[in-house]
Amino acid sequence: MKKYLAELIGTFSLVLFGCGAAVVSGISTTGPAGAGLLGISLAFGLAVVVMAYAIGPISGCHINPAITVSMLVAGKLKGGDALGYILAQFAGAIIASGVLYLIQQGQPGFTMGEWALGANGWGEGYLAGYSTASAFIAETVLTFLFLFVIFATTSKWGNGTMAGLAIGLTLVLIHLVAIPITGTSVNPARSLGPAVFAGGQALAQLWLFFVAPLLGGILAALVWKGFEKE
Amino acid sequence: MKKYLAELIGTFSLVLFGCGAAVVSGISTTGPAGAGLLGISLAFGLAVVVMAYAIGPISGCHINPAITVSMLVAGKLKGGDALGYILAQFAGAIIASGVLYLIQQGQPGFTMGEWALGANGWGEGYLAGYSTASAFIAETVLTFLFLFVIFATTSKWGNGTMAGLAIGLTLVLIHLVAIPITGTSVNPARSLGPAVFAGGQALAQLWLFFVAPLLGGILAALVWKGFEKE
Amino acid sequence: MKKYLAELIGTFSLVLFGCGAAVVSGISTTGPAGAGLLGISLAFGLAVVVMAYAIGPISGCHINPAITVSMLVAGKLKGGDALGYILAQFAGAIIASGVLYLIQQGQPGFTMGEWALGANGWGEGYLAGYSTASAFIAETVLTFLFLFVIFATTSKWGNGTMAGLAIGLTLVLIHLVAIPITGTSVNPARSLGPAVFAGGQALAQLWLFFVAPLLGGILAALVWKGFEKE
Amino acid sequence: MKKYLAELIGTFSLVLFGCGAAVVSGISTTGPAGAGLLGISLAFGLAVVVMAYAIGPISGCHINPAITVSMLVAGKLKGGDALGYILAQFAGAIIASGVLYLIQQGQPGFTMGEWALGANGWGEGYLAGYSTASAFIAETVLTFLFLFVIFATTSKWGNGTMAGLAIGLTLVLIHLVAIPITGTSVNPARSLGPAVFAGGQALAQLWLFFVAPLLGGILAALVWKGFEKE
Repeated sequence: MKKYLAELIGTFSLVLFGCGAAVVSGISTTGPAGAGLLGISLAFGLAVVVMAYAIGPISGCHINPAITVSMLVAGKLKGGDALGYILAQFAGAIIASGVLYLIQQGQPGFTMGEWALGANGWGEGYLAGYSTASAFIAETVLTFLFLFVIFATTSKWGNGTMAGLAIGLTLVLIHLVAIPITGTSVNPARSLGPAVFAGGQALAQLWLFFVAPLLGGILAALVWKGFEKE
Repeated sequence: MKKYLAELIGTFSLVLFGCGAAVVSGISTTGPAGAGLLGISLAFGLAVVVMAYAIGPISGCHINPAITVSMLVAGKLKGGDALGYILAQFAGAIIASGVLYLIQQGQPGFTMGEWALGANGWGEGYLAGYSTASAFIAETVLTFLFLFVIFATTSKWGNGTMAGLAIGLTLVLIHLVAIPITGTSVNPARSLGPAVFAGGQALAQLWLFFVAPLLGGILAALVWKGFEKE
Repeated sequence: MKKYLAELIGTFSLVLFGCGAAVVSGISTTGPAGAGLLGISLAFGLAVVVMAYAIGPISGCHINPAITVSMLVAGKLKGGDALGYILAQFAGAIIASGVLYLIQQGQPGFTMGEWALGANGWGEGYLAGYSTASAFIAETVLTFLFLFVIFATTSKWGNGTMAGLAIGLTLVLIHLVAIPITGTSVNPARSLGPAVFAGGQALAQLWLFFVAPLLGGILAALVWKGFEKE
Repeated sequence: MKKYLAELIGTFSLVLFGCGAAVVSGISTTGPAGAGLLGISLAFGLAVVVMAYAIGPISGCHINPAITVSMLVAGKLKGGDALGYILAQFAGAIIASGVLYLIQQGQPGFTMGEWALGANGWGEGYLAGYSTASAFIAETVLTFLFLFVIFATTSKWGNGTMAGLAIGLTLVLIHLVAIPITGTSVNPARSLGPAVFAGGQALAQLWLFFVAPLLGGILAALVWKGFEKE
């Protein structure tokens, strides 16, 4: 049970810190300049860094169903664990979006728009308005690179002390490229949380943030198997 | 005595670097763009990173009464030490705000406004104007996550080399979410320092920055006890 | 073969993350402030940090022909490997620019300008408009420092755990100085990728991003030999 | 000789990266937003991080006369070495400012103003226009904290792997507070380099950037002796 609770707290942190930074601090209303694309990217990625060192020793710190499925495909996780991990990740993400929703109620003038609470999306009205094809390519290729780094840094060749830092910084990089395209998911749970509350377009576009990350992650598992064998 | 002096210097650094970055550099007056919400968040969090490696071996680097009390609840600190730690933290924070006050005297056009010198607060006139409920929820939940990471990374499973980095980066994340809500405290000493000089609203609102962080920290201590037992 | 594939994936990542951040997120179109010079600098440098820990144990993580040639000059790489490394680096960079080109097709209003896709360059019309001499001096001196740090941190005196971080952060620093001058190359492969698609000026100015980084790198190899001998 | 050359290259890097980021990239002329106070702070601090891992094993990586003198006072450096260290630091800083001057010649419309090339200063016309007293207090207190962290993290209790990171991040923090006040020196060599070329006010105000950092550093040495004894 401890490892499922760890995954729940970890995914809760990822969504609260990442989406929280985007929603509360991304654009400044008054006072100093907002966190911007760089601050939001750091929020998502450093949340993974921090959780890797906190719950890594307990659950492996997946906090992302695309990672859990890729680990399963690569034979590094027991099938029985996978379902519990994913359910805990979903629960953590939804609770985080709920807490963020509660906090935002207290902001003067807050209203729920399309893609509220940091929901992922694409197309007209979503940030830079990229196409479905661009969204799909970006999410697939970037999840591939994310999982490639995860497999490589946690392999027998990897540096155990630095792996958590390298993995989290990879998520910073992924956000630095993809925020204007999809808001950056590479993680079905992170997309599910806000979509449950935002509904509408955020919910209708949720499929891509399940399919593309899982595809990219599974491809990385297969490529990494080749590296391990050789 | 050495450990109390270390806590004093550590808390002095946290407040001087964190509130100093906010007050002196948060918004640019002339020259390059100000440090913004990201720069201020990094100032508070990296101050903890740096002090963790400097005074961690001497006092454990609490530099925050919410941490000291949580450690006491979790049975990781002797009761006799707690009072000395907290008094040293209060002293360090107040001296830092005094030095910052002195430096600001030399800035042309400087005046003490409500919530001056980086004081925490909320409501109308304070940054984005969040409600008391939002302020309380944010401070409680974020201190819970802060202490959870501290307990986990310094546990028998944690990586001793990276713990200080992970803990400080957690404070970066907390600031990236909460600056527009409360200015971000999660630390009664950090709130006390500027409030002593700013008075007024900053002093009247000080209670929340004692109650919520202590509540969040104690909750984390109880949850972590469960993780250790299982 | 494994090490060549690693170099290809590593250089692919460097160009996709670095040029991707510049092209997609450098300037915000809508939403939070763009990543700016700091975000772009971090994208290039952290890509090296991440890849150093992922593929460092497989290929040494050169992902830069200037590094491969300097290693050859310093006697730290077999001549037979060098050609394969460089071809893999060129391939990875070109594929990354191709993927970025594909993604940008889906951005409303995207057009290929001179120096598109994050191409390096200088002179009138290129960022701050620096002269050829400035471009040459900057690229040579900064590649010298880059390779000096690489030789020093991976030497027998270096800290193996932190070398990858130090090397990547050096590339952050190099970008923090040189983006307005040349967009920052210090890496012929990184310059080749976008130039292949952008053509025109980007292709015509490519020579400098081969000559200056190779010169700076070879100088560093010779200076470092002196440090090793003494 | 090797250690003096290392100090020269290290101080050259600090000034080229730090002042270079400020002068070339601090404020954007065209293209993405400039590096700002945060980017400049990171440039100075990360230069120390990088050099700590590169030349730390060779010379100890002082690259700052205030550190060399404090080490001498603390009995951690032989008197005979100190002079060579300081001369090498001065030489490295002056050469770096010279290279930066050369590069800036190639920027259209470049002119040498008061406090050009990243020179330190204060008062009317210098950034936020702080008073002499504020400048002196800030430089003294911040150098004290800088040296305190250096003594603590490199002591017998310190973590050798993380010391270089903690020390460099302290310099980031110092810049995050003090850029609007003095441009941030805490290092006589870093101030000397640009002043030699800028002349005028930069040269006339140089005394403070020798006196205050040396005073703060020596105080830290004395305080740290107390920590070691107890």
